Amino acid sequence: MKYEWIDGAVTAPKGFSACGVRCGLKQAGPDLALIYSERAETTVAGVFTQNLACAPSVRFSQLVVEGGKAQAIVANAGNANALTGEQGFVANAAMAQRAAELLGLNPREIITASTGVTGQQLPLEKIQAGLDIAVPALSEDGGADAAEAIRTTDTYPKREAIVMHFPEGDVRLGAICKGSGMIAPNMATMLCFITTDAIIKASRLQQCLRDAVERSFNCVTVDADTSTNDMLVVLANGASGVDVNRYMNEFQLALEALCVKLARQMAADGEGATKLVEIVVQGAKTYAEARVVGKTIGESMLVKTALFGNDPNWGRILAAAGRCGVELDIDRVSISIAGTQVCANGQPVPFEAPAVSNAMKSKELPIVVDLGLGTECCTIWTCDLSYEYVRINAEYHT
Amino acid sequence: MKYEWIDGAVTAPKGFSACGVRCGLKQAGPDLALIYSERAETTVAGVFTQNLACAPSVRFSQLVVEGGKAQAIVANAGNANALTGEQGFVANAAMAQRAAELLGLNPREIITASTGVTGQQLPLEKIQAGLDIAVPALSEDGGADAAEAIRTTDTYPKREAIVMHFPEGDVRLGAICKGSGMIAPNMATMLCFITTDAIIKASRLQQCLRDAVERSFNCVTVDADTSTNDMLVVLANGASGVDVNRYMNEFQLALEALCVKLARQMAADGEGATKLVEIVVQGAKTYAEARVVGKTIGESMLVKTALFGNDPNWGRILAAAGRCGVELDIDRVSISIAGTQVCANGQPVPFEAPAVSNAMKSKELPIVVDLGLGTECCTIWTCDLSYEYVRINAEYHT
Repeated sequence: MKYEWIDGAVTAPKGFSACGVRCGLKQAGPDLALIYSERAETTVAGVFTQNLACAPSVRFSQLVVEGGKAQAIVANAGNANALTGEQGFVANAAMAQRAAELLGLNPREIITASTGVTGQQLPLEKIQAGLDIAVPALSEDGGADAAEAIRTTDTYPKREAIVMHFPEGDVRLGAICKGSGMIAPNMATMLCFITTDAIIKASRLQQCLRDAVERSFNCVTVDADTSTNDMLVVLANGASGVDVNRYMNEFQLALEALCVKLARQMAADGEGATKLVEIVVQGAKTYAEARVVGKTIGESMLVKTALFGNDPNWGRILAAAGRCGVELDIDRVSISIAGTQVCANGQPVPFEAPAVSNAMKSKELPIVVDLGLGTECCTIWTCDLSYEYVRINAEYHT
Repeated sequence: MKYEWIDGAVTAPKGFSACGVRCGLKQAGPDLALIYSERAETTVAGVFTQNLACAPSVRFSQLVVEGGKAQAIVANAGNANALTGEQGFVANAAMAQRAAELLGLNPREIITASTGVTGQQLPLEKIQAGLDIAVPALSEDGGADAAEAIRTTDTYPKREAIVMHFPEGDVRLGAICKGSGMIAPNMATMLCFITTDAIIKASRLQQCLRDAVERSFNCVTVDADTSTNDMLVVLANGASGVDVNRYMNEFQLALEALCVKLARQMAADGEGATKLVEIVVQGAKTYAEARVVGKTIGESMLVKTALFGNDPNWGRILAAAGRCGVELDIDRVSISIAGTQVCANGQPVPFEAPAVSNAMKSKELPIVVDLGLGTECCTIWTCDLSYEYVRINAEYHT
């Protein structure tokens, strides 16, 4: 059994509707997304930012996920309702309350999410008025609109869908996602909402999600800044009639593929990015060490500016690896950039710098770092650091 | 007893001579510095990069420091002789060997240091020819020339000197320093050389130096990238005739003041910097925790771009604190920017954003973060992240 990519979003799985409407928090365009599952037996799983300065929506939705059941997701862009104290918690709860009333649900079955400016109180009336419009606008074709509504600095809306064929019938996964300055507290929170019509218990779904996120979103780094508002939530409503309990490997693989595809898009669309950089760290003693090495390289401002300049500066890559805290033998490290080996066993290898520099201009740039110590491997996705990143983050004013 | 700032450099203390000459490794200007102590009883202390990918000069000089005695420092700019394998070690040893021959010393009494491009073999003949010119050029007025010779992307040479008056006579401290993209592996290694005519044992000098560095250079961060070549070395020749053993507090304070002054200059002159940012983290439970919070804020690309844009974006500061791993109570954190409180107990405080933004345009920008948990405090120096940083590091090609 393999999965197949299909056109779609969170409304690709059966029994889900969604919409994106304007409530007036962003300067223009839709800024309120609603995702709804018609089935009461919908289970939920989620992972959330580890930032201690997390938003009320994060704390609220964590409690919902602990309960294991949710039937709707309401997400606004333009105001993160973060660092807003007690008043922020009240506003977030009121947002869930209004959605619950309109949908005939318990507020504890509503996932809330917010992205946008921090430190400003949420204009609750606008959210409430927006929900009044959103509920009648729910549609089985509304997934793309919802993707559009959660955008902030993303240059395009991100959505994907997958179908799996089982003997008992088809199971679908659909997703929308946003995030650009990976998880910047201001205008670039990472939000990802996934739906599926599989039958799956909340506890298993949570385990699947954790594993999938570990090798996808947790391997993306744009600028090492983690947000106050990040969340990834999955709803499973069982509408396909297919219990995936006996297909856990297949389901897990498809969920991970979906997450990897979205994670790569997020890195490629990082604030100011001119290219997606895929750093494969292999030959590591452990997966954890491979990831630390990869993340340190992927977060190095010196590496990222060199990549922007199409400079095959492997010395910066090796120096980043050398300072990351993992016990390395520099004399065993080999590096290739855009398919050309530039360093073998910690020493320079003669190469045609202009040709490699030219190859680095591609939209997708592979870098392989072999530590020469073991067999473990981790892939990290990041982007380059450009003038545009500085412009976006310096010229945007609170 | 207080210390006094005087005009000078590494030749301010008695019994030291220095020079800066051109050997042809940089595109223009002097690129080889030599510092010499005429007294055989000169002791040495040093601290070095923790980067595993460290240069031969670092490993060589560490051994010299372990021996406790050194009479000369030879430092070149333009080529870091890092990531150059066995051949690099041989070249570094040969550099020490030639200096030793010319000065009539043992090579194990010579500190070597290199800064510049990585991954390229050191043109040893140029260094050796440069040393032939340098030794006759040694002069008691040569400190400023030596400061000039170790510059790479620094916009000005950094040198400072201090005199302390003791009943037994005066003791002087002199220093030269370079470093701009804190300790970038390419063109911005941090090198600092300090001389003193105090009488002090190597072991005490080493302890003094460690303490001084802890609260000065180790509190500077420009871009979190640590170099393959960093070192700070102190030579003490005893020429003042004053044994500072009984004045350790005074000597320690003066050494720390010297290091802090140079560390601030390094942050202020960080690659592309438009301002020096001083982050005071107070109200911490421990000094170590205060430092982690301060460094995380000071290394956050989002904070640094906001500071470049003169944006009083305290949400980014608080979010950086929230993700740094220190156990904080966000509801107790207060923040002031350029003297204006912008956040109290984790919540917004009304303030005149245009006025604060205007105040942020100053060349020195103070930020105070009060964690509200204890009485410990740490000061971190950093700079903003500008277009110019990207230009310097993207357009410079290996």
